[in-house]
Amino acid sequence: MAWDPEFEIAFKPKTIAVVGAQREPPPWGDFVANLQNAGYRGRIYPVNPRVGDGEIRGLKAYPDLASVPEPIDLVIVTVPAAAVPPVLEDCIAANAKNVHIFTAGFGETGEEKGIELERQIEEITRRGELRVLGPNCMGLHVPAAGITTWETFTPQAGPVAFISQSGGHCGVFTGDGARFGIYFSKVISFGNALFFDSTDFLEYVAKDPETGIICMYLEGVRDGKKLIELVREINKTKPVIVWKGGLTDWGAKAAASHTGSMAGNKEIWEAFYRQTGAVRVDTMEELYDITMTFACLSPLRGRRVALMGAGGGNSVAGADVCAREGLELPTMTEKTLKELRSFIPPEGTFITNPLDIGVVLRDISLLLRSMEPISADPLIDSIIFVLPVQLVFGSMNLSVLGSQDQPAIRAEIDKQVGVVLDSIIKFNRENVPHKPLIMALQAGIGPLLPGGRARVQQELIKAKIPVYLSLDRASRALAKFTQYHEYHNKSG
Amino acid sequence: MAWDPEFEIAFKPKTIAVVGAQREPPPWGDFVANLQNAGYRGRIYPVNPRVGDGEIRGLKAYPDLASVPEPIDLVIVTVPAAAVPPVLEDCIAANAKNVHIFTAGFGETGEEKGIELERQIEEITRRGELRVLGPNCMGLHVPAAGITTWETFTPQAGPVAFISQSGGHCGVFTGDGARFGIYFSKVISFGNALFFDSTDFLEYVAKDPETGIICMYLEGVRDGKKLIELVREINKTKPVIVWKGGLTDWGAKAAASHTGSMAGNKEIWEAFYRQTGAVRVDTMEELYDITMTFACLSPLRGRRVALMGAGGGNSVAGADVCAREGLELPTMTEKTLKELRSFIPPEGTFITNPLDIGVVLRDISLLLRSMEPISADPLIDSIIFVLPVQLVFGSMNLSVLGSQDQPAIRAEIDKQVGVVLDSIIKFNRENVPHKPLIMALQAGIGPLLPGGRARVQQELIKAKIPVYLSLDRASRALAKFTQYHEYHNKSG
Repeated sequence: MAWDPEFEIAFKPKTIAVVGAQREPPPWGDFVANLQNAGYRGRIYPVNPRVGDGEIRGLKAYPDLASVPEPIDLVIVTVPAAAVPPVLEDCIAANAKNVHIFTAGFGETGEEKGIELERQIEEITRRGELRVLGPNCMGLHVPAAGITTWETFTPQAGPVAFISQSGGHCGVFTGDGARFGIYFSKVISFGNALFFDSTDFLEYVAKDPETGIICMYLEGVRDGKKLIELVREINKTKPVIVWKGGLTDWGAKAAASHTGSMAGNKEIWEAFYRQTGAVRVDTMEELYDITMTFACLSPLRGRRVALMGAGGGNSVAGADVCAREGLELPTMTEKTLKELRSFIPPEGTFITNPLDIGVVLRDISLLLRSMEPISADPLIDSIIFVLPVQLVFGSMNLSVLGSQDQPAIRAEIDKQVGVVLDSIIKFNRENVPHKPLIMALQAGIGPLLPGGRARVQQELIKAKIPVYLSLDRASRALAKFTQYHEYHNKSG
Repeated sequence: MAWDPEFEIAFKPKTIAVVGAQREPPPWGDFVANLQNAGYRGRIYPVNPRVGDGEIRGLKAYPDLASVPEPIDLVIVTVPAAAVPPVLEDCIAANAKNVHIFTAGFGETGEEKGIELERQIEEITRRGELRVLGPNCMGLHVPAAGITTWETFTPQAGPVAFISQSGGHCGVFTGDGARFGIYFSKVISFGNALFFDSTDFLEYVAKDPETGIICMYLEGVRDGKKLIELVREINKTKPVIVWKGGLTDWGAKAAASHTGSMAGNKEIWEAFYRQTGAVRVDTMEELYDITMTFACLSPLRGRRVALMGAGGGNSVAGADVCAREGLELPTMTEKTLKELRSFIPPEGTFITNPLDIGVVLRDISLLLRSMEPISADPLIDSIIFVLPVQLVFGSMNLSVLGSQDQPAIRAEIDKQVGVVLDSIIKFNRENVPHKPLIMALQAGIGPLLPGGRARVQQELIKAKIPVYLSLDRASRALAKFTQYHEYHNKSG
């Protein structure tokens, strides 16, 4: 099955039928409630012959699709596997052609019964010219249209499309994405890919004006050649970030059980990354980090980083981590070093790259004064801070102020954190030529201020300063981001 | 300088003099206050000629060491570099031989002035037969004795010794260690290692009955041959976990600025790890993870893991991560699989290894029932859970219960979390033959219960179930832990 533009209405449907809706659904499959909670503004039609003309969650239920009084833009099928073929016949009868089959229990089980059912739904789909997503998947999530099949929902829409063979990954990525400044245009969980495959959705989001960054989680792909061609082309204008599951032997076995995919061997996929310039990620953590990087940063001129840290050991560790990821820590110009030496005391610091500016970090005006010449240095492309978050954002003055259990002291600390954050954000906005700031948080000295870490993440990321949960993660993401742009500069 | 047992009194001193103590010390160096806040039960003598017979933080101050009315077990020198030589002369005069030089500004600066000062303190130390720790270091932290030089302090003592050339790393590791169930016997920040070196402290903690696990952060070492011999021997009875800073070119440059160390090349250190069986870590995160693993787990019989997860994509990702770290996910016995199939529904799950038991995770009694046959399976050595923490520990019932903003609902959730935790802990304690449980948290579905993650970490780790912040980190730590035991089984 090739991509069918008629299916696009399913991403902004005026009407959705949920076949198999129940009054007391299992906790993982309450599709009607999830749509209602997400603020879906179209009309929802629960369909279930057993509840006849009754109600489900305040909505009139229908015994079958044919009874629904208006055209249906999207049918979500949630009945048990054996009942799916007759529901598809109903779809044909009701002229409801866009179908998402949530139900599992087909080819991926590897059992005769499931394989036979899969043959049946394939036959019905072709005969009825249905447009089918799935089976064995969570389907569509479109914040701007208020549609979702899972519980988590961030109303804010954004530029990230996610095409995923795992519904669980969709739930996790969209559920926690906002914490990393990641907001979504279209999210597609497509499971067994019996009809539409990843390449079909890729064609769609490539043209989607609301999508600027494309993430994919794949276990297998039917037309590898087409995938390579599409990604190579699309990747030139919209970064394509690809997480391939099942690249190890144990992983491939699991992928076969999950979506019935032939995972393909490691060498083939390594060639895929080389030939397309797709950005490779291998874990959910990397998916967050790299996507955040693309969402926050403009292209960098190069991989020359100034690393500003607190503490000598920290600086050594930071230099090691950056070097392992292929970033460079060049010596800055004599002008920069001279300026820094003019006000940073030599004891317990070192003014080179990485910079150990320990004490300076406790004074925001000195910190900004340090960043100025570094930012202006022509040998530097970006600035990474690696900080125990408390040192700059809070407990620095706790010993002076007293216990943070007292509300007045909490308020004072909150105020100070605000001043520090605002200063950094202002600096990042105004430094010209722009050298992006990147923040790496660390295991901290002393207990975290309650909510302090979350606030730092939230406010900085909102201001397009990416915040990573370790330097390891920051430098890996930055290296891959730089590599992406280098690839495209080279290949023209 | 070789190890001098006379210095051991410095780890449980009855008296400490702080030379250079000030009424208004800089925030990073308030040694008197830090000792007081740590509940040090000996006597503190602030020494500063400029405050004469005045007081510092309620303690009588002395103009020099000779005026202190009793023998001094440990002198902490915090005066500027140029003033250190005369203070050392004072130490000799007062017969105070155990000295920690906090002050920086010596050989590590690479400047003539610092190198000359270093020559002077070397000469005085030898002539006066002083026992000197440093310079350029944070010195000693011994929870059981209530001594520390930095702000963070966890009163609870434990089996972990940390010998570190970076004071910053000491602050971070001890400051956040408790969150990972890591408690300390002796912590030694030794900086430039001009006199005592890492090998000296290693000899000491090897014999220390309070130390069971030895962690080291090294930038350089004077006697590499001795280090190899010591670690090879000690590692047989107490695991030695070594983080070598400066293994990359950029890192080595930073190490030279930090402690004046010659970092040594990568090949030499790789040979060190091979020849000694020391457990290698490369980041602070790994140091936490591996140390927690040794603190929680008894030796494993092998690397055959049962991976229990929620969701198919998650299971594939988990299998990939484990495979990359060299863990094995064997098929379990037919008996185990049959038992699991008898009560886990086939739809949306897969009963193999990894196990995707999705829905079962929402029901603690089913979860325990799943763990029983797996734990009894002779083909399995340990069980890793990989879980979006909310799924099991909270928000699972939020949609039923309503908003957690209401105190009654919060209380109910807290109670449920408690039941789940208690059940898991009880299972881990009672399953025989013992197959340890290992928990890997994940980016979650939906917002975290406030404090939920911290509570899960705290209660499980206390019960010796290690909790890692990602499966990536869990499997790497478990692989290294297993490798350590395999090394010793092989080398006998």
